[in-house]
Amino acid sequence: MSQLTAASVSTYVEQHKDRFIGELCDWLKIPSVSADKKFKADVLRAAEFAKEQFLKAGADKAELCETGGNPVVYAEKFVDASKPTILVYGHYDVQPADPYELWTSPPFAPVIKDGNIYARGACDDKGQVYMHIKALEILTAMNDVPCNIKFMIEGEEEVGSDNLGPFLEKNKEKLKADVILVSDTAIFSVDTPSITIGLRGLSYLEVKVTGPNRDLHSGVYGGAVANPINILCEMIAGMKDENNHIVIPGFYGDVLELSEADRKALNSAPFNLDNYKKALDIADVEGEKGFTTLERTSIRPTLDVNGIWGGYTGEGAKTVLPSVAQAKISMRLVPNQTPDKITQLFTDYFKRIAPASVKVEVTPHHGGEPAITPTDSAGYRAAEAAFAEAWNKKPIPMREGGSIPIVALFERVLGLKTVLMGFGLDSDAIHSPNEHYRVFNYLKGIETIVLFHKYFGQK
Amino acid sequence: MSQLTAASVSTYVEQHKDRFIGELCDWLKIPSVSADKKFKADVLRAAEFAKEQFLKAGADKAELCETGGNPVVYAEKFVDASKPTILVYGHYDVQPADPYELWTSPPFAPVIKDGNIYARGACDDKGQVYMHIKALEILTAMNDVPCNIKFMIEGEEEVGSDNLGPFLEKNKEKLKADVILVSDTAIFSVDTPSITIGLRGLSYLEVKVTGPNRDLHSGVYGGAVANPINILCEMIAGMKDENNHIVIPGFYGDVLELSEADRKALNSAPFNLDNYKKALDIADVEGEKGFTTLERTSIRPTLDVNGIWGGYTGEGAKTVLPSVAQAKISMRLVPNQTPDKITQLFTDYFKRIAPASVKVEVTPHHGGEPAITPTDSAGYRAAEAAFAEAWNKKPIPMREGGSIPIVALFERVLGLKTVLMGFGLDSDAIHSPNEHYRVFNYLKGIETIVLFHKYFGQK
Repeated sequence: MSQLTAASVSTYVEQHKDRFIGELCDWLKIPSVSADKKFKADVLRAAEFAKEQFLKAGADKAELCETGGNPVVYAEKFVDASKPTILVYGHYDVQPADPYELWTSPPFAPVIKDGNIYARGACDDKGQVYMHIKALEILTAMNDVPCNIKFMIEGEEEVGSDNLGPFLEKNKEKLKADVILVSDTAIFSVDTPSITIGLRGLSYLEVKVTGPNRDLHSGVYGGAVANPINILCEMIAGMKDENNHIVIPGFYGDVLELSEADRKALNSAPFNLDNYKKALDIADVEGEKGFTTLERTSIRPTLDVNGIWGGYTGEGAKTVLPSVAQAKISMRLVPNQTPDKITQLFTDYFKRIAPASVKVEVTPHHGGEPAITPTDSAGYRAAEAAFAEAWNKKPIPMREGGSIPIVALFERVLGLKTVLMGFGLDSDAIHSPNEHYRVFNYLKGIETIVLFHKYFGQK
Repeated sequence: MSQLTAASVSTYVEQHKDRFIGELCDWLKIPSVSADKKFKADVLRAAEFAKEQFLKAGADKAELCETGGNPVVYAEKFVDASKPTILVYGHYDVQPADPYELWTSPPFAPVIKDGNIYARGACDDKGQVYMHIKALEILTAMNDVPCNIKFMIEGEEEVGSDNLGPFLEKNKEKLKADVILVSDTAIFSVDTPSITIGLRGLSYLEVKVTGPNRDLHSGVYGGAVANPINILCEMIAGMKDENNHIVIPGFYGDVLELSEADRKALNSAPFNLDNYKKALDIADVEGEKGFTTLERTSIRPTLDVNGIWGGYTGEGAKTVLPSVAQAKISMRLVPNQTPDKITQLFTDYFKRIAPASVKVEVTPHHGGEPAITPTDSAGYRAAEAAFAEAWNKKPIPMREGGSIPIVALFERVLGLKTVLMGFGLDSDAIHSPNEHYRVFNYLKGIETIVLFHKYFGQK
């Protein structure tokens, strides 16, 4: 009879919570931004830090594995070949923090405020990875480790995990396991714990529209020479119709339409549109006609401009007709769309609608496949039981709008299903200024993870 | 009988040309960028430099006149109350130089290359102002000054001349004259000298579209929350129809349509579309249907985005749904449009087409009235005669696409007509990287200005 119970585990967490929070904050102080080369050294420091913490927490071994890019932190605790093995995945790299001026406290100087830890990466994903390190500490301390555990924490998730595929191919044997456990998602709310069963895919590209070979005087040439900014705006506007339906030919061709029953279930989640609008300070939501907000953010694909720039953006007025306009554009994908096909469809369409007066370039950044986790799998049932015991509530299965491209990769290369047991909240402002992670969720998450090990060990 | 002849004047210019070029280069080294506060001290240094040069060149007095902004350099040479008075206007401030990386030599380190002076302001407008200072030197040296001369060189032309109106109002007496002479325009080509008789006006504004109250994760919210960049692009695209006709209600209401004869005359200027496209490296021109390139850049109004920015524009990929998107937009105006009315029409339309899912702000930067100079005026005829003698060619009257808002201001406040005797070339890349001014035009312009004084004195 396992001594791992909600009671015993929460007692341990309660006794050590200040240290648990302090250690995470030390990790959050390292600006491990993978998108910007100038943070390269910090990214490596963050990996080293994780390695040390795994060893302190009780791992038999921990190491940095070389890749074509940032190293993967690998650690493991082996107990018994007859026991099932859990492979924990997470990432130690974080999103860029800018615009810095919108942070109420510096992104890499963590502070605790109103029960939240404020810092870039507090939730996505250092905070959620560190819960697993502390779960390992507890299992080790209680001398009751129900499963063999392997950890694979990468440093390029925020830039597309380009080197993870080759790493998996090279280390299939080392990574052998029965299930993959990932904490990089959110629960519906503190009162409504949930487990993510669906994720959207991603196709991310950069476009460049070039008009004249130099910036021109808008008075001398304006009206006769195509303005690449105006053209880019028209091309972007030309991607959707008046119902916010994306008009790229074939875009919806592979979209898996849900049954009425599934849509009903999806819409049964407690959701308050007024609170949603209030929280974002918007007068109205806007999206594809014929779908609810919950559907628009889960079972429908999107096309968003993530960034745009061109011409004079400094102080004051400059009457210039610019030579170049650029934008970063991403599309969220749903089953059964594939990033390669969507990227191709976008590229073809974008080039086709470009007028003869400009030159256009499309550069794919990275993509990710959409994914689904079956609710009848051993992994899902163990997660469900862990939540039920730790939160006294049966979690609801939920589809999320975000992407964890590597989930599909795991299935393809390792042949393993992934359980997405995340503990964030949509309001955590990940990828935004003032990202934060609720201390309650952090501590309760550690407890839930420990119990997941118990229940998965009993399978 | 005046000793001021093309022969005598060009001899003087030939003897002193190295010094004439060297002095201009010293002035060009001062980065007098009025749009950016950090150049404030340099703007003042540039004004001081001009004042000194006027005194050296023979002005009776030269001073810096305080305004609400950058000072006006005022200088004068009085000879005889019975003689006509010429008021020369120009500006010593320059456009911002960025993007710096596109300059082949630093913008504020002038170099002479292939017969051109390369530097920000080489043509617009320091180079053209300095021609007048050297013309004053020649008139003084030859001891033959046919007219009284006043100079008014301002430091805010590139940011809208906001303080010039009040300055004119306060100094009507001091500025009394018979004509205003401005060199801030271009000739058609070295083989086809021309005098600008028409200028477009300008309405310049900045727009801001705000969606959610913070940057959001494009996966969690994408598809359900309006993306301000997508919206801004759609709104900008919504400003023109498929014929590049601007659809803002009432926009063309006051546009003065030219007679077929006037359009024919305008299109008779020697213009080669292939060379035009080749010089800009564009496969095709693009503009309002039903008008030629010469018409599109002179007698038709425009709407150009001068700058746009929003979201993540750094290295790599950031999956953000931004909170804000902004753009600088300017419209070139033609007789009889007025900036106030057009700014209002734009603002009303922009706010009207904004969806409920975003908030929009429109901030007017500055405007300028379009203008026309009658070809039967004494000033125009003197300019025509000066060109004819200096260039051995009768200049053609030309309409330009650019704006010199103060021309209309002069007429309203001082009741004076302006003669636009500029010597630049459209290929001088003013407002662009690698702005340059042809040494031939600079020296020949000095000669032409001296002869203008002769002919205007004979009226």
